[in-house]
Amino acid sequence: MNKSSILNTESAILQSIAGDFPRHPSQLNGLLEADAEIISVPGKTDEWLVLKTDGIHEEIKEKLYEDPYLVGWMTVTAPISDIAAVGACPTGILLSLVLPRHYSDEWLQQFKAGINDACSTYNIYVLGGDTNFDDILSVSSTAIATIKFKSPLLRTGMKPGDSLYATGRLGMGNAYAYYQLFDPTISVDYQPVARLKESKTISQFASACMDSSDGLFPALSVLSEINGLGFQLTTPLQSILGPGVLPTQQRASLPAWMFLAGPHGEYELLFTVPERANKKFRQACEDENWQPVFLGEVIPENKLIFFSESLEIHCHPGTIANLFYESGGNIQTYFERLMLQHKKWSNP
Amino acid sequence: MNKSSILNTESAILQSIAGDFPRHPSQLNGLLEADAEIISVPGKTDEWLVLKTDGIHEEIKEKLYEDPYLVGWMTVTAPISDIAAVGACPTGILLSLVLPRHYSDEWLQQFKAGINDACSTYNIYVLGGDTNFDDILSVSSTAIATIKFKSPLLRTGMKPGDSLYATGRLGMGNAYAYYQLFDPTISVDYQPVARLKESKTISQFASACMDSSDGLFPALSVLSEINGLGFQLTTPLQSILGPGVLPTQQRASLPAWMFLAGPHGEYELLFTVPERANKKFRQACEDENWQPVFLGEVIPENKLIFFSESLEIHCHPGTIANLFYESGGNIQTYFERLMLQHKKWSNP
Repeated sequence: MNKSSILNTESAILQSIAGDFPRHPSQLNGLLEADAEIISVPGKTDEWLVLKTDGIHEEIKEKLYEDPYLVGWMTVTAPISDIAAVGACPTGILLSLVLPRHYSDEWLQQFKAGINDACSTYNIYVLGGDTNFDDILSVSSTAIATIKFKSPLLRTGMKPGDSLYATGRLGMGNAYAYYQLFDPTISVDYQPVARLKESKTISQFASACMDSSDGLFPALSVLSEINGLGFQLTTPLQSILGPGVLPTQQRASLPAWMFLAGPHGEYELLFTVPERANKKFRQACEDENWQPVFLGEVIPENKLIFFSESLEIHCHPGTIANLFYESGGNIQTYFERLMLQHKKWSNP
Repeated sequence: MNKSSILNTESAILQSIAGDFPRHPSQLNGLLEADAEIISVPGKTDEWLVLKTDGIHEEIKEKLYEDPYLVGWMTVTAPISDIAAVGACPTGILLSLVLPRHYSDEWLQQFKAGINDACSTYNIYVLGGDTNFDDILSVSSTAIATIKFKSPLLRTGMKPGDSLYATGRLGMGNAYAYYQLFDPTISVDYQPVARLKESKTISQFASACMDSSDGLFPALSVLSEINGLGFQLTTPLQSILGPGVLPTQQRASLPAWMFLAGPHGEYELLFTVPERANKKFRQACEDENWQPVFLGEVIPENKLIFFSESLEIHCHPGTIANLFYESGGNIQTYFERLMLQHKKWSNP
């Protein structure tokens, strides 16, 4: 075949697959407009069936996830985090597994323990699944959930002036990836919990929501694009990083922004709250004993402004997210591109 | 690790995975008791949410499915056939894809055409999905469906004396596999259609139902085991085979039973109808212009009786199904075991 007939970028393939199927007439969300798929229940105006399929494949292939317990835990947590992002209440998951025949009983027990513990944490069940066998390990799961007596949370809906929050401090996903892929002498614990509890409060007040499963900047890039807006992160990035990130940051001597660059995130919820709802939202969080992390605000311009150490960066919202796509998924190349970008910003 | 800690059979692994998770309190079906997962809708006695995840992995790996259109078609048809087997009405599917980066645009177009054509045929939609990239191709999909104002069809519920039917003649799945894997000089068309239309009639009369996606005998083995019963196939197997099977059978000089041995089936529905409902069921089929294939009847003994050419076989219901498991999934070994079994039966 000739070269022009080859789709040689992942994003072109993804675009081509997802964009080519007609939408269900009862589906609320357009393509990319929500973290999960939201279908209205016939005859009801405030009831929704919510679905999400998420695969853990590249994380295993790149050896980011090697511990079977973590693979099991993430198999459940990844789609449930998306369920939380739309404000839904999950029922259960269906598993789709490709397992190597030679895996030990211990491996399998640990894998199942991770699945079971996550299901108990989220009060959900494994409803079914399918298992195939091959030389590789690949897992995927589909979460089923419902929304009743309220509207789903979408990625769209934010307005300039809305406050941007996260359910917790960020950067653990990338700190863990750095430890796992570049420097095994630093130990980083990574076992994110989908923010179902917080999502109940958030869905009462937020104008838009998305999880940080792909990292902060990739999420902000998507939110900027589909809303035609931008973000000014007034809180210096150093203060946004989780305490577990700091030892890695110090040892690796990397700027704060790199731990938020993606593509491996920490499964917090990122959400915007309109000015008029801000006070009540803060009060509700206090009543429920958790504290959202204030990041900044939505701005009308399609750009991203943030402070990382001594730098004040103004860039296109997609600049950081695109570095991963431009590196063709190669981790080493990606890391080099991050360093190059930092050099450009440091010596303009 | 020591050898005893290795689970070296697929069935042991499958058993171990599926059997170890607690069931959802609202889930109607126990493990293996239905082709799909059936969850009661809170507050309703005659409404059910139905889900099914099905992976097309080994079929691709063994080069049974090479045509991208067929892969796309089967990605949808496989879980929808299970939805039909429980008498549900499908809404849509979610895709979970692992795609090689180097696949051509033409490949992708054909794959999507297969998905789109199947969705149009079943009047359903692609609701969402997730795509990962690797060197291999692996696809899985989850179907969502509902049952309203009637009871779901299970694999359990049949009684001795019930008639056993199929929605169509059988054997095409194995004839296609023989053509694709052993003798490319015979051309066999294979593009099964999930029996959604027939399922509406069947669900009014049948006592149990299961699709023949894994072939007739593996299905009868499961039905025998979970019902604690057996089958006498009074119709000679030669008359059960689809017309498309005969050229392959003649050329390969194989007995009829081998085309029903599995593990690659034809996605017909296999179902039992109680004697008292038989006449009305036949009339309903006639009214809707289709003719079920009568296979035989349910017997109280846990055995399988059938006629293949000049042989009258009495065996355990699992004998034929187990030949595939015993061959460890190796197609050549499996074929040798089938031949050996036939020799045993021919020269007892």
